[in-house]
Amino acid sequence: MIATIMRLSRYFLPVSKDVPADAAIVSHQLMLRTGMVRQNGAGIYTWLPLGFKVLQKIEQIVREEMDRAGAIELLMPTIQQAELWEESGRYDDYGKEMLRITDRHDREMLFGPTNEELITDVFRAYVKSYKALPLNLYHTQWKFRDEIRPRFGVMRGREFLMKDAYSFDLTEEAARASYNRMFCAYLNAFDRMGLKAVPMQADTGPIGGDLSHEFIVLADTGESAVFCDRDLLDMGAPGLDLDFEADLTGEVEKRTSLYAATEEMHDEAAFAAVPSDRQVSARGIEVGHIFFFGTKYSKPMNAMVQTADGTNVPVQMGSYGIGVSRLVGGIIEACHDENGIVWPKAVSPFDVGLISMRPKDEAVSTAADDAYAALTHAGLDVLYDETDERPGSKFNRMDLIGLPWQIVIGPRGVEAGQVELKHRKSGEKFDVTLEDAIAKVKAD
Amino acid sequence: MIATIMRLSRYFLPVSKDVPADAAIVSHQLMLRTGMVRQNGAGIYTWLPLGFKVLQKIEQIVREEMDRAGAIELLMPTIQQAELWEESGRYDDYGKEMLRITDRHDREMLFGPTNEELITDVFRAYVKSYKALPLNLYHTQWKFRDEIRPRFGVMRGREFLMKDAYSFDLTEEAARASYNRMFCAYLNAFDRMGLKAVPMQADTGPIGGDLSHEFIVLADTGESAVFCDRDLLDMGAPGLDLDFEADLTGEVEKRTSLYAATEEMHDEAAFAAVPSDRQVSARGIEVGHIFFFGTKYSKPMNAMVQTADGTNVPVQMGSYGIGVSRLVGGIIEACHDENGIVWPKAVSPFDVGLISMRPKDEAVSTAADDAYAALTHAGLDVLYDETDERPGSKFNRMDLIGLPWQIVIGPRGVEAGQVELKHRKSGEKFDVTLEDAIAKVKAD
Repeated sequence: MIATIMRLSRYFLPVSKDVPADAAIVSHQLMLRTGMVRQNGAGIYTWLPLGFKVLQKIEQIVREEMDRAGAIELLMPTIQQAELWEESGRYDDYGKEMLRITDRHDREMLFGPTNEELITDVFRAYVKSYKALPLNLYHTQWKFRDEIRPRFGVMRGREFLMKDAYSFDLTEEAARASYNRMFCAYLNAFDRMGLKAVPMQADTGPIGGDLSHEFIVLADTGESAVFCDRDLLDMGAPGLDLDFEADLTGEVEKRTSLYAATEEMHDEAAFAAVPSDRQVSARGIEVGHIFFFGTKYSKPMNAMVQTADGTNVPVQMGSYGIGVSRLVGGIIEACHDENGIVWPKAVSPFDVGLISMRPKDEAVSTAADDAYAALTHAGLDVLYDETDERPGSKFNRMDLIGLPWQIVIGPRGVEAGQVELKHRKSGEKFDVTLEDAIAKVKAD
Repeated sequence: MIATIMRLSRYFLPVSKDVPADAAIVSHQLMLRTGMVRQNGAGIYTWLPLGFKVLQKIEQIVREEMDRAGAIELLMPTIQQAELWEESGRYDDYGKEMLRITDRHDREMLFGPTNEELITDVFRAYVKSYKALPLNLYHTQWKFRDEIRPRFGVMRGREFLMKDAYSFDLTEEAARASYNRMFCAYLNAFDRMGLKAVPMQADTGPIGGDLSHEFIVLADTGESAVFCDRDLLDMGAPGLDLDFEADLTGEVEKRTSLYAATEEMHDEAAFAAVPSDRQVSARGIEVGHIFFFGTKYSKPMNAMVQTADGTNVPVQMGSYGIGVSRLVGGIIEACHDENGIVWPKAVSPFDVGLISMRPKDEAVSTAADDAYAALTHAGLDVLYDETDERPGSKFNRMDLIGLPWQIVIGPRGVEAGQVELKHRKSGEKFDVTLEDAIAKVKAD
């Protein structure tokens, strides 16, 4: 990797002090204030450099956990032909949320809101035998849903980035095993992002099927009420050493056997049966949604596979979505304080912020340049504020951006051979040598 | 990075023996035969796993060379508002190649064919002073051009992936320095991909401006006739240690002073003045195009910056495109033989192909599994063919896919403690120990 530009004076980080009036939730406010996104139209955003870095980090974590679970990456286009959706019967069902497009030859097309039809078409073109199964194909691609009232910034945009995976199996039992692999991979992915995501029974909506879980992050500002057993919150993720070749039923059942449901699926009586000290009633944000829908698409679209005994059966399918762009907002909702964002380490746009308090003082500026070189050499991604602004506004900006660690180089420290290391989340400050600061940041 | 699935029996690599009738050029044929892409509609493709890996490698090389040259990455959306294009005057100019879309509220939108307007809007929203300049912002995003006759596979598709960078400067002189940085970065990027790209004087077309170069890769199957001085072909790229802070005029002029032009810009008299043994008349493929267009967009869109003396002037701009998805086809056009693709190392989907000749023979299969583990441990990305097919068809498929190196594990080699290492490009074969094979592949 080539180091990206990180000297603030050369970077493009349009931080703003104003809270925009139309930004109703804190993540939207903070993303605009920190110059992470700019709105280009209703529910359509440019990801400015700081926001784009976070988006990329989330995408990469999701990619790694999909790969670890045995899914294979490809990339489907944004524009799809209407014919495929007529085959599945969803072309009319989808209504006005589907962005319909007519090309120069008057062919009906659409900007994909999801990809069940297209992946089923790819599958049926090539796979004819059970021997190629199980198969799980995924991509991370921009989608469009023409929401009537886009709002909450990237949390409910129209153009949004989604990772969607699709599993193909011969039998329902094998398809449930594929579902379980995704269930566990999702828990690991969210855990790596610093999020506690709780799987909850969910409605299947326009995707269809009879088995579905939403992954919900608890946040006071969440869009919907959720109810769950506290034991779910105390339970760790399955872990990166999980054997995805093994039977994962136990991993899934120890979670699904505990009560957890969103508002729509909430069952007061079942919730009342949870010991009262374990009843959690909170608000949550949906960051992932998985579905098993069997032959809902393969049957009408004739995606058949031959079994060992030579008969042809429609393939059993599931689909698995993670809202990559929505997660940026979701993480901020879950991780902020009165001074701004508090990024979990794994998705922070930079590892550490370096502030030169007096860039015009030669000793300070030399020490800061040296610190920048040493931090970069140590493999850390550094945002180096060497601008000529007042220290107070530099501190505030660094807090607002929310990198996990800050290192401040000032005249007193330079004399004492020390730097000030600040932990953004706790606010703790340490006067230490640069070497100790680097060690502490790396050990985090 | 998590290792992706590379056991061929678990991978999704739908190789086909048939040459599709509608595939007119060799890259299109080979991409369909190797299962790199699948057409979903006219000029619209799904990138299957093998093709997607190449696409990602090219995108990453371009990203690294943009970053090295000081450009800053962001991401603009695919859907744009018509209003911006009315400001620049291009909404009507662009004609039927622009995919026009109306949303549920009857607002006019479009799928971006390029981003001069949108980036100018981002710029004017935030940048007011010369102090923020120079600035170069880029993204890699899917574009759509509604070509009347999409053809040649990904070489002239409708939905295509482009890296487009935009430079902003106070003066024309500074803008030319930005142009020169991109000129050199492009040469380095193409060189890293194993391509010899020749900068040629070009027409500015619908982007506009008075200075423009196309970067052309020579290939017998190229779309247009090109003419240049042989010395340009013998000249290396500026190199990755180039100082992008320095004046690059010399690097640019030593190339632009030599004759090179595409058909449209060809000047017979000037070409005749090139010594006859240096006159190259060939066919070429455009893989990049750079433009300096001054205030063409900043003036009508009112993107002004304040100078040091307090006056406001329209910012000087240029734009710089690389056809990322087109390059996949372009590289194949330049790098193939009668047996299939011959990938340059840096963009090859895998580093090495491993063939187990007799997966049912326990000694062979154990040796092949061990070799797979050792190659992976050595940091190599391996495609491991452990399928139960005839050796001949496995050899042919591996040649067709075109990974730079192949390692074959067969019964005789296992007895002798050796593997067969094959260099795809030269066809040379070596009977060596596994350790020597790994060393040879890594040293390549």
